[in-house]
Amino acid sequence: MSKRPLILITNDDGITSAGICALAEAVADLGEVHVVAPDSPQSGMGHAVTIGEILRIKPAYFPIKGIDAHSTSGTPVDCVKLAIYKILNRKPDLLLSGINHGSNSSINVIYSGTMSAAVEGAVENIPAIGFSLLDHAADADFTAAKKIARQMAKEVLKRGLPSGTCLNVNIPKLPLKDLKGIKVCRQAAGFWKDAFEERTAPNHETYYWLTGEFTNPDQGEDTDEWALSNGYASVVPTQFDLTAHHAISELNSWGLK
Amino acid sequence: MSKRPLILITNDDGITSAGICALAEAVADLGEVHVVAPDSPQSGMGHAVTIGEILRIKPAYFPIKGIDAHSTSGTPVDCVKLAIYKILNRKPDLLLSGINHGSNSSINVIYSGTMSAAVEGAVENIPAIGFSLLDHAADADFTAAKKIARQMAKEVLKRGLPSGTCLNVNIPKLPLKDLKGIKVCRQAAGFWKDAFEERTAPNHETYYWLTGEFTNPDQGEDTDEWALSNGYASVVPTQFDLTAHHAISELNSWGLK
Repeated sequence: MSKRPLILITNDDGITSAGICALAEAVADLGEVHVVAPDSPQSGMGHAVTIGEILRIKPAYFPIKGIDAHSTSGTPVDCVKLAIYKILNRKPDLLLSGINHGSNSSINVIYSGTMSAAVEGAVENIPAIGFSLLDHAADADFTAAKKIARQMAKEVLKRGLPSGTCLNVNIPKLPLKDLKGIKVCRQAAGFWKDAFEERTAPNHETYYWLTGEFTNPDQGEDTDEWALSNGYASVVPTQFDLTAHHAISELNSWGLK
Repeated sequence: MSKRPLILITNDDGITSAGICALAEAVADLGEVHVVAPDSPQSGMGHAVTIGEILRIKPAYFPIKGIDAHSTSGTPVDCVKLAIYKILNRKPDLLLSGINHGSNSSINVIYSGTMSAAVEGAVENIPAIGFSLLDHAADADFTAAKKIARQMAKEVLKRGLPSGTCLNVNIPKLPLKDLKGIKVCRQAAGFWKDAFEERTAPNHETYYWLTGEFTNPDQGEDTDEWALSNGYASVVPTQFDLTAHHAISELNSWGLK
């Protein structure tokens, strides 16, 4: 029997994206790699799960030799659940999500399907890392991102992760030679100044596209945004306990009954 | 000009659900109430946003006199964004989400469209509360939930909320006379033991339904699960900073470069 670590790979851009290939390629020799990813793009799906609709699983072609792959009709979080409870015959030793095409730093973590898959790994007590490259281009250069992904996967296979956490890793859009290294960070307190572009359909109905501009008033040098702007890959330990523990005493002082 | 507080109400069960009516009714006289909710059920949507598809907004019938209402084709988070940036002419003073049909305690907070709408309020710096009643029945009794919703809405209109937080309020399935009161809590460390029910379609294709069982090994008396099991409504301050701050020093000790 093989004692190689079982590495589950998923993403939110879909199984045919360049990013998931880059990720699988970067870690192919670190263990037994199994890809379970959405059959279509699922960006912005957050922590959505499919509870009112059926799910499908299909064996999928994957362009890297020796890697088993399945696509599902579900969200990134569905993929993690289906992989663990239906597809794989043992619990993965590591879950990797990505490499996302575009940033999941700062507030983007809560909208991100990539990171929600990693968070679901943490919920399932599986060490998990989400990777995102700050480049939306179809011909994005994944060289630096692959190096970071391989390094972080090896570290986490060796050390594990603190209970209840996963890692949110973002990689700046830089040639490998200009990447300064890795910084452990907190999530910057940025937000989206949203807007909706209004259009008229041929049938005269009005419809909207979500647009908007990311805004970051948080200049802290301990933030992911600072690291990324200064040539570093950012690593943010990320948790699924959403309790604002610091606010409990203030709320208790209200004397609610 | 009116100085009444502007209260935005949304949910994830859709604009025609009993719970959103109960919520609007409970707070109708506390301000100018505007309902902006999904045109169809969106349970389990987490923090999903619609970025690759168009969105529609329609004026909607709402059965409570004096309350303006719109439905949208989007997720609960889309509804909050559309309300703030497209429908309302000023920033809401309070965002209320629910009353959800079913629990959003413990880990359910991360899958919940109800709570994601409230979290989006916090991101937008609007005091926000999500309400959930632990009863899925079509004829659920909202009496206790309405009392709690009204009380919490009044408190938060008066006091505001700590920056970066919203409230996750769950109400046990109890007649009002048996409700013991309100407890401020942390999110219990429970999880879903998932399963997938396998079925065969008429065309012989296999498909799956997500099922599963909620499991809570966390017996802490400071948790939402404890409060709910002991006859109290639970109030958990909930934040969108997902950084596991306590894990930063451990990760720094890895010496990543």
